[in-house]
Amino acid sequence: MTNSKFVYLTRRETFCASHRLHNPKLSDEDNRRIYDKCNNPNGHGHNYILYVTVKGEPDENGLIINLYELKAIIKRLVIDVVDHKHLNYDIPKLKEVIPTIENLVTVFWNDLKVELGDLLYEIRLEESENNIAIYRG
Amino acid sequence: MTNSKFVYLTRRETFCASHRLHNPKLSDEDNRRIYDKCNNPNGHGHNYILYVTVKGEPDENGLIINLYELKAIIKRLVIDVVDHKHLNYDIPKLKEVIPTIENLVTVFWNDLKVELGDLLYEIRLEESENNIAIYRG
Amino acid sequence: MTNSKFVYLTRRETFCASHRLHNPKLSDEDNRRIYDKCNNPNGHGHNYILYVTVKGEPDENGLIINLYELKAIIKRLVIDVVDHKHLNYDIPKLKEVIPTIENLVTVFWNDLKVELGDLLYEIRLEESENNIAIYRG
Amino acid sequence: MTNSKFVYLTRRETFCASHRLHNPKLSDEDNRRIYDKCNNPNGHGHNYILYVTVKGEPDENGLIINLYELKAIIKRLVIDVVDHKHLNYDIPKLKEVIPTIENLVTVFWNDLKVELGDLLYEIRLEESENNIAIYRG
Amino acid sequence: MTNSKFVYLTRRETFCASHRLHNPKLSDEDNRRIYDKCNNPNGHGHNYILYVTVKGEPDENGLIINLYELKAIIKRLVIDVVDHKHLNYDIPKLKEVIPTIENLVTVFWNDLKVELGDLLYEIRLEESENNIAIYRG
Amino acid sequence: MTNSKFVYLTRRETFCASHRLHNPKLSDEDNRRIYDKCNNPNGHGHNYILYVTVKGEPDENGLIINLYELKAIIKRLVIDVVDHKHLNYDIPKLKEVIPTIENLVTVFWNDLKVELGDLLYEIRLEESENNIAIYRG
Repeated sequence: MTNSKFVYLTRRETFCASHRLHNPKLSDEDNRRIYDKCNNPNGHGHNYILYVTVKGEPDENGLIINLYELKAIIKRLVIDVVDHKHLNYDIPKLKEVIPTIENLVTVFWNDLKVELGDLLYEIRLEESENNIAIYRG
Repeated sequence: MTNSKFVYLTRRETFCASHRLHNPKLSDEDNRRIYDKCNNPNGHGHNYILYVTVKGEPDENGLIINLYELKAIIKRLVIDVVDHKHLNYDIPKLKEVIPTIENLVTVFWNDLKVELGDLLYEIRLEESENNIAIYRG
Repeated sequence: MTNSKFVYLTRRETFCASHRLHNPKLSDEDNRRIYDKCNNPNGHGHNYILYVTVKGEPDENGLIINLYELKAIIKRLVIDVVDHKHLNYDIPKLKEVIPTIENLVTVFWNDLKVELGDLLYEIRLEESENNIAIYRG
Repeated sequence: MTNSKFVYLTRRETFCASHRLHNPKLSDEDNRRIYDKCNNPNGHGHNYILYVTVKGEPDENGLIINLYELKAIIKRLVIDVVDHKHLNYDIPKLKEVIPTIENLVTVFWNDLKVELGDLLYEIRLEESENNIAIYRG
Repeated sequence: MTNSKFVYLTRRETFCASHRLHNPKLSDEDNRRIYDKCNNPNGHGHNYILYVTVKGEPDENGLIINLYELKAIIKRLVIDVVDHKHLNYDIPKLKEVIPTIENLVTVFWNDLKVELGDLLYEIRLEESENNIAIYRG
Repeated sequence: MTNSKFVYLTRRETFCASHRLHNPKLSDEDNRRIYDKCNNPNGHGHNYILYVTVKGEPDENGLIINLYELKAIIKRLVIDVVDHKHLNYDIPKLKEVIPTIENLVTVFWNDLKVELGDLLYEIRLEESENNIAIYRG
């Protein structure tokens, strides 16, 4: 066979956090118009589900990356940073970021890229069963 | 047959909200010890799932209560009140309530009881797939 | 220990079917008012999920009823009868029954009671993740 | 970093409908052989899950498209058209279409393409947890 | 109001394990007849989901039992004992127990009863989405 | 329209099995270090979920491949081989394969490729909700 050797491996982790969608460069009225209920001043929250996918060739142990190691990296670089936090106020690097799922996937990508390098293939973030964002760098 | 006529009918609705577990009568240290990560000052959030169960005899239309009506009651009395809100700060009647799921189910029970009366059988509230509270009055 | 010996055992099966909510004793106008979208003349359908729970003491083989046997009974008495059918038109015994989930659980109870007898404890039927009925005889 | 700016954003909506798989150009016998249980004359139904994915660069508000707007478009162009309907008989544009999930995803693609244009990336349709179709134009 | 004060609180945990259904007091033939595929000599496995429900009155902190504490008790008394194990061979106290879900719920009940005492209300164990057992002591 | 004709069609099947992660070429100590809990000598198990995706043009019957046929092929070539088995000991062709999900997807790919040929697009295997592997040949 002349198949590709590449396999995709995904680890799922979860966290809960609150956020408020608000662009400080816009008027309050514009913010309410654009973000509607998500602009509520005290914020609201979600149980987020994060899927991190790496791509690579399984080694002689049948592993692309050890799932225990992948779990530990995701936990240290993302989950421990955001779990049970308010994304707008508690996390320095998110201070300038409007925490939509579109923006969050690119932030998490950059964070994980530092350690996962070329292994990293895709970040998927669900803020509810209905709203999902994916980023592939 | 001499079966009971009673059937249980459940409607599921969802909302997202943030909360902070904090008892103002306790020291900050005690609050951190008891509520741990859930005591984070800026709060965190969840996608809550609410199940409301009524109990009754189906009428000649095959209905205990019209599910459209049940949905509308739950929406008006609970979902519209708490969805995309901060449970500690945005909702007057929760100001004195520590928003654990144990306390929330009893509050929602009392709210729904006013309109559903003896039909109301059970409230089930999930703050995540792992944490669930049930109240039967 | 003086625990009860009773354990509850549940088997989940699924079927898909269409139905129309319509009471022939009422006017078309009343039918539309009561059943709304569910009164659409050509019907609509669901992926139903059925949970059948038996209650009993595990025997020396650790079984209340063999799950293969329970599955076969549910399949023969319910699933084979209703799967891929129109509940209003294709099933003789449902001809006089308005196929709400409230009515369906009592019909399925009576069907399963014939073979499961006192073992039968509860029937749970979900027509969607939001609408659920339970019957305990 | 020289990452791509593109992020994928997915909205999930649900509807229920009935359908019958039947090709009028074939004999009844061939229809039964090909579609088996799905050829039942009165049809059967499903709870369908529809995922619509757009692809684009988040703007300064962190949005590719406002999820409220995306939801409204999907609701108007697809859900309101098919929910609680019989796909073979109630929907003019499906009259000539055999309503397999393979065909439905291409129809929904064309409908959504009119308003979503180049934003539209993928349509995913599940007629049950076991049967899924995806179309990317 | 004169409502009961009792609220039910459930914690969900998961583990994976293998088992073989085999009664050493029966012939191999009888074992194959009774347990069918589940009698495969080298065993097979499941992702088990365990729900532990306590019943009590929320205290002034809004808690029946701290969910962190409940999680820790379940982890220590059940999950650490059975996770990634072969239920027939690796766990001394299960050596004489045929590991059906009916039997496992009663074993887990007795284990958790020691620390949870009268708080313990119900154990629910799922070996798959289709097979579920519940025990209430 | 000049859309591609290609649609992706996915069938989901499940099986349960036990496995042990162990590389016989390494020391016991190295095996424990690499595979941790998954190296437990008696193995452990999972409820596996397998998604097989084909890619093709729907024919005049609206089908890429008949889902009944696809289901039968997956059942014969994969499910019947591995369901309720120990992946390390019961399956000759896996004797030399360390049964990580990374390795299993490539084995299942090769098995299904024989009959599905160019239709086969993707194999996705979940050993739990948290651990997922995908292979595209």
